[in-house]
Amino acid sequence: MQKPSLPKGTRDFAPEVMVKRNYILNTIRAVFEKFGFQPLETPSMENLDVLTGKYGDEGDQLIFKILNSGDFLSKAKPEDKDDYKALIQKISEKALRYDLTVPFARFVTMNRGVISFPFKRYQIQPVWRGDRPQRGRYREFYQCDADVVGTDSLICEAEIILMINEVLGKLGIEKFALKINNRKILSGIADYLGYPERVSDMCVAIDKLDKIGEEKVLEELGQRGFSEASLQKISPVIALSGTYAEKIIYLKQIFTSSEIGRKGLEELEEVVNLLSQITQKEDFIEHLHIDFDQNLARGLSYYTGAIFEVKALNVSIGSISGGGRYDDLTGAFGMPDMSGVGFSFGVDRIYDVMEELNIFPEENTLSTTQVMFTNFDAEAQKYLLPILAQFRAANIRCEIYPDSSKLKKQMNYANRKNIPYVVLAGEDEMKAAKITLKNMRSGEQDLLTASEAIQKIQ
Amino acid sequence: MQKPSLPKGTRDFAPEVMVKRNYILNTIRAVFEKFGFQPLETPSMENLDVLTGKYGDEGDQLIFKILNSGDFLSKAKPEDKDDYKALIQKISEKALRYDLTVPFARFVTMNRGVISFPFKRYQIQPVWRGDRPQRGRYREFYQCDADVVGTDSLICEAEIILMINEVLGKLGIEKFALKINNRKILSGIADYLGYPERVSDMCVAIDKLDKIGEEKVLEELGQRGFSEASLQKISPVIALSGTYAEKIIYLKQIFTSSEIGRKGLEELEEVVNLLSQITQKEDFIEHLHIDFDQNLARGLSYYTGAIFEVKALNVSIGSISGGGRYDDLTGAFGMPDMSGVGFSFGVDRIYDVMEELNIFPEENTLSTTQVMFTNFDAEAQKYLLPILAQFRAANIRCEIYPDSSKLKKQMNYANRKNIPYVVLAGEDEMKAAKITLKNMRSGEQDLLTASEAIQKIQ
Repeated sequence: MQKPSLPKGTRDFAPEVMVKRNYILNTIRAVFEKFGFQPLETPSMENLDVLTGKYGDEGDQLIFKILNSGDFLSKAKPEDKDDYKALIQKISEKALRYDLTVPFARFVTMNRGVISFPFKRYQIQPVWRGDRPQRGRYREFYQCDADVVGTDSLICEAEIILMINEVLGKLGIEKFALKINNRKILSGIADYLGYPERVSDMCVAIDKLDKIGEEKVLEELGQRGFSEASLQKISPVIALSGTYAEKIIYLKQIFTSSEIGRKGLEELEEVVNLLSQITQKEDFIEHLHIDFDQNLARGLSYYTGAIFEVKALNVSIGSISGGGRYDDLTGAFGMPDMSGVGFSFGVDRIYDVMEELNIFPEENTLSTTQVMFTNFDAEAQKYLLPILAQFRAANIRCEIYPDSSKLKKQMNYANRKNIPYVVLAGEDEMKAAKITLKNMRSGEQDLLTASEAIQKIQ
Repeated sequence: MQKPSLPKGTRDFAPEVMVKRNYILNTIRAVFEKFGFQPLETPSMENLDVLTGKYGDEGDQLIFKILNSGDFLSKAKPEDKDDYKALIQKISEKALRYDLTVPFARFVTMNRGVISFPFKRYQIQPVWRGDRPQRGRYREFYQCDADVVGTDSLICEAEIILMINEVLGKLGIEKFALKINNRKILSGIADYLGYPERVSDMCVAIDKLDKIGEEKVLEELGQRGFSEASLQKISPVIALSGTYAEKIIYLKQIFTSSEIGRKGLEELEEVVNLLSQITQKEDFIEHLHIDFDQNLARGLSYYTGAIFEVKALNVSIGSISGGGRYDDLTGAFGMPDMSGVGFSFGVDRIYDVMEELNIFPEENTLSTTQVMFTNFDAEAQKYLLPILAQFRAANIRCEIYPDSSKLKKQMNYANRKNIPYVVLAGEDEMKAAKITLKNMRSGEQDLLTASEAIQKIQ
């Protein structure tokens, strides 16, 4: 009998982990719904042609393909059997979703006739990627996306900033930077350099700033053919620091001849203006952790307007959320001009950050069970069973130890499950028509009626 | 550009469906936790050797296998390429889970050292089966299991009956029969017939009673080699009706020489006795919809004690829940004698039953969004944005229409999303520092301050 094992890069979530994960997911879900986003779920499997070609060659390699059922080999022609690609097409037509965006685009395209736009949906489901597993990188992990499509209103951008703040605030992650930029500002910088067509190239280099530093970024730009003069021009732009207002003034100056750059600044200012109206606070920029970062590009040439990224501060894993505006969600499925804006929380990363900061609230690191009823013997059991029912009728989550084992074993069970209260009943309690309620953390014991105990716990 | 489509047998769950599904799942989850069950999640993928051989030959055929990544063909030997089974082993090592029981058994085996037994877990996750899709049968569907392992206490059986009642009661499914039997009672009947070794055979035939009727069941038993005399003996047992107490008296008589049959009755009576103690009600059998059915076998020879099945009455699809006690969850993984009892809700079926009976509560068939703020123009938007923030601070789920489109379009949007309230603000409202709150169902409109409106909605 061989020992069973888990596939590489996958995880079981035991109850003590699930409780914490659910705490994070429920917090996110509640905020999504508070802002008018509605839940959507799509199947784990998609037809291969829906997925392939959407993630680049490298991404395509990482898609998990599902074998057709039945003896597919007999259907393959002899020459297929030595040709990997030909055989794949014969033996596999479906694959596991790689992200939530492409299935969402597929859903919007298929349901365009019945959806009321603007369509605000959130989606919290696992995705699968055949990446080499390593610390913090899994082959199955949850994504947690919210998108509004069918409008280019900047209210959506402003609300995303509010949502991120509300989620992280509720989770107790206090120190973070909500970096914001706009693809059009990056285009403006490329204009300013004299390379309006090379904004993607420029972004690829700038994106590495955090990792390799300014000097190496300039070096890479040089290698990519940017002129010495342009490097001299971009250097102070990359290094630009100061307040939000100071940065805006600087960029306005260098964008005098870049219409797209000015448009980017306008969009950014409108988002900030909306946030001022919403919050009615003088210090809303600081209050909302907004950090305008003209170097934020997030690699994806996919974005056309706002770009977001959230970094938790003072922890080893930084980036916990990101997103942006795009112009063309569904073009690959033949439905053009579907613009929208979306963002995503990294649940595993938020989990790790919260563990590192040790900020899971105690009541959420505990068992879901609030009270364990002990089980001395048949008589005590008979006495306690209706009281247990009374507790449950009061919506208290509780359980009775099912066997009359040694009390020590029962108490150990409650301890290991982190159950905060234990109910005991022996002869004395039964005579007095009461129970003993033990607080497992303080050790405090009280002789109470059932109703008194219920009140104490609630 | 080809139109995208969904794989056969899979479904998107659009927001209006998700809202109802979540209502069912949250109800089930809350009851599971109230009874001390804790959440567990296992990966969608399992190693093939964990799954194969657990579901019979037919089941094995229906497991969705996942292709290894990379060019697996080059690793296959030439002779493998014509041999389906040999090739499969080379190109696929993982598969999608087929149910939640085998992954649970795998989890228990792998974590035996750290689990506190008795272990009460629930698990709500999708499973995949390559069945031919048809109405009500999907290739991806959710299972919803709760099990207690590591104890043979009959309190667990009694609590399952309470949980089923609480879930269905909360969902508003009032008419159902909670059929209960015990595998040992079926063994007792086989004893009584003189075929103690042939209880499985007997069950296969009896299981068809609902479909083919008593006469055909007896015919099938005859074909399976049961003697004419035994058919004469079983006929009144199958036809046995009457109250719970009457049935018990009858079976006690025919089990005078069947120890296992008497044990089965004892277990059943103990469960009923516990329920009497818990509920403290005279009519608890009726109250809990308990219907002792000596013919309930549920096919699975896997069960060794209690057997449950719940049928919703007066609807086309009947069976919505089932389960039973087993002796050997983890034997296939080399960990013997792990007994437990579990049950499962059929979420898709419960959904269909509730649709058929039209009992989804109105507030749960609505949008998750409670209030839509209209958007007349920039000025009205500016006026409403801080009020929107005030609503959200009061935990009201709301959204503002992001564009200043025609009012009719905005109202249509609210209508199609089933949003119960709309907030309007024009010149008059702004002058009065108020808003108009419109109840979308009654049509009623009130001019209110923001705080008054919040109070009205909460």
